[in-house]
Amino acid sequence: MDAEAASKALLSADLRGIDSHGVARLSGYIRLWEAHRINTSPDIKIIYETPSTAVVDGDSGLGLVIAPFSMQVAIEKAKNVGTGWVSVQNSNHFGIAGYHAMMALEHDMIGIVMTNASPLVAPTFSTERLLGTNPVCVVVPAGDEPAFVADMATTTAANGKLEMLQRKNLQAPSGWIQDKDGKTSNDPHELKHGGALLPLGGDFEHGSHKGYALGAVVDIFSAILSGANYGPWVPPFVSFLPVSDDLPGKGIGHFFGAMRLDAFRPAAEFKKDMDRWIRRFRTARTVEGHAKVIIPGDPEREMQVERLQNGIPLLDVVIKDLEMTGEKLHLTL
Amino acid sequence: MDAEAASKALLSADLRGIDSHGVARLSGYIRLWEAHRINTSPDIKIIYETPSTAVVDGDSGLGLVIAPFSMQVAIEKAKNVGTGWVSVQNSNHFGIAGYHAMMALEHDMIGIVMTNASPLVAPTFSTERLLGTNPVCVVVPAGDEPAFVADMATTTAANGKLEMLQRKNLQAPSGWIQDKDGKTSNDPHELKHGGALLPLGGDFEHGSHKGYALGAVVDIFSAILSGANYGPWVPPFVSFLPVSDDLPGKGIGHFFGAMRLDAFRPAAEFKKDMDRWIRRFRTARTVEGHAKVIIPGDPEREMQVERLQNGIPLLDVVIKDLEMTGEKLHLTL
Repeated sequence: MDAEAASKALLSADLRGIDSHGVARLSGYIRLWEAHRINTSPDIKIIYETPSTAVVDGDSGLGLVIAPFSMQVAIEKAKNVGTGWVSVQNSNHFGIAGYHAMMALEHDMIGIVMTNASPLVAPTFSTERLLGTNPVCVVVPAGDEPAFVADMATTTAANGKLEMLQRKNLQAPSGWIQDKDGKTSNDPHELKHGGALLPLGGDFEHGSHKGYALGAVVDIFSAILSGANYGPWVPPFVSFLPVSDDLPGKGIGHFFGAMRLDAFRPAAEFKKDMDRWIRRFRTARTVEGHAKVIIPGDPEREMQVERLQNGIPLLDVVIKDLEMTGEKLHLTL
Repeated sequence: MDAEAASKALLSADLRGIDSHGVARLSGYIRLWEAHRINTSPDIKIIYETPSTAVVDGDSGLGLVIAPFSMQVAIEKAKNVGTGWVSVQNSNHFGIAGYHAMMALEHDMIGIVMTNASPLVAPTFSTERLLGTNPVCVVVPAGDEPAFVADMATTTAANGKLEMLQRKNLQAPSGWIQDKDGKTSNDPHELKHGGALLPLGGDFEHGSHKGYALGAVVDIFSAILSGANYGPWVPPFVSFLPVSDDLPGKGIGHFFGAMRLDAFRPAAEFKKDMDRWIRRFRTARTVEGHAKVIIPGDPEREMQVERLQNGIPLLDVVIKDLEMTGEKLHLTL
């Protein structure tokens, strides 16, 4: 059952076009398991709670399994008292935030999901990598329109985009990364030489201190509320990087929230206004060369329709990786 | 009592160095009152609630008074069930978000405050101004260290910064504004000619769709949850701009949240980790030419210490404005 839940979460990333977080990551999870950093029969449980909050201990399980469990706890709390908020310790990488947040939609709830991540990001003015790409996802139900789904790293560009440039040997735009001394760089391989990803904004003049603050909030809600590791101590997803032996917490941390629409006003009224909001924005006058203003979630939804029909194109390197993983574990694909 | 509460909120902005939101705004509030858009004896009340949520009707009162009322409701809910979440309709400009959010600190709670605002911001690919600078503030208590206070517009630069450039006739950096056709501009007066402020990120390549999504979330939580006006229908703060006669809601909207630290873990444990977080970031290796990595809230706190000692410097134009306001209302300063 856990395997099925995890597979669904991974596949959802591929369907939605977030290829970096789909089956391409499978071998990464397996390497973590081989390094004894993943517990395959975890005892995932609530260790602290109030009517609207909980802390979940993931017992070093797969984040892909811990996350749906924790989102469900948030949803149950929201059913009882209007909203539910769950901070999680002792977890691992959970795939795409959007998959878990969207669980709220069928309950007419707003869903909020955050996670901290491997330290690859330098705060404004820092040459050290102290934060992860720390994504935030907010999903909002609508009526006749599809749901609003904002799922974003708090950096200028997510690490997956940088990996794409690395594979194709292309330059990165200025404002995405810095070198080990904190100078702007266009070399997508800079991270291997002590460089860092930059917070949303890119530099101070363009508000990178805001992206840094957002990433910090994600770190605090995910890890300091729960007792997970935070900042530079977050155990890296890549198993070949060292894990500090003076850790302040347990595993990596996540944060989940659910708010019942009708904890604020009748759901039908909310959805009517949300539909009007979406239509007004989607039909706004556009800059020449652009057909429409995008509603957060539009591109991923359109991709999912397309891929459900035509299949998911996998890169040769990903197919080879899956084949090798299958052979190693004596599975036939 | 309301006057005292409002004055405190305004003064707090000046003390913290956010001059655009302090007494310089007083004449703006008075113009709104003269235009019959502010009710001086409002019946501010909860019109809908659950154990962890409420909607407050501000009855067209001063936002400076409605906001502390609503934050207090969030705090009381959090005392009872762990967290409290309040969406507000029928309000006006509430000053700086940080002032209201910091009310949570003395209760050992995390405070969250958002508001929508006059439509001056163009979403990515739009030439229309559909969002406000929609700030988000998150404050987090620490132990021995001062609290973490992130208070930021979801645009590259807040409108106050642009106004400063206008006064001094300086150019704006690229990525702050666009002209009426959506082309990058460096003219800080562009907003008067149909131009717009840009979401955090500046352009699509640098993640402006993320800043747009953040501003949208603020709009939805503040106004669609509460039944206030949203997007391009938010009544503008400047009283000489027209208010649409087909409004979808009431007044402008805010959102307030409070989370008890000990709804997640013992407050002392949380604060110990928060102190360690703050110290690790503040002492990180820096880019040459920068003394330290800034913790959100550091600059405003240092400014407050300085101004409490040496006074608040006011621009001549602000003093003249205050004098004229005093004469008009037959007050002696």
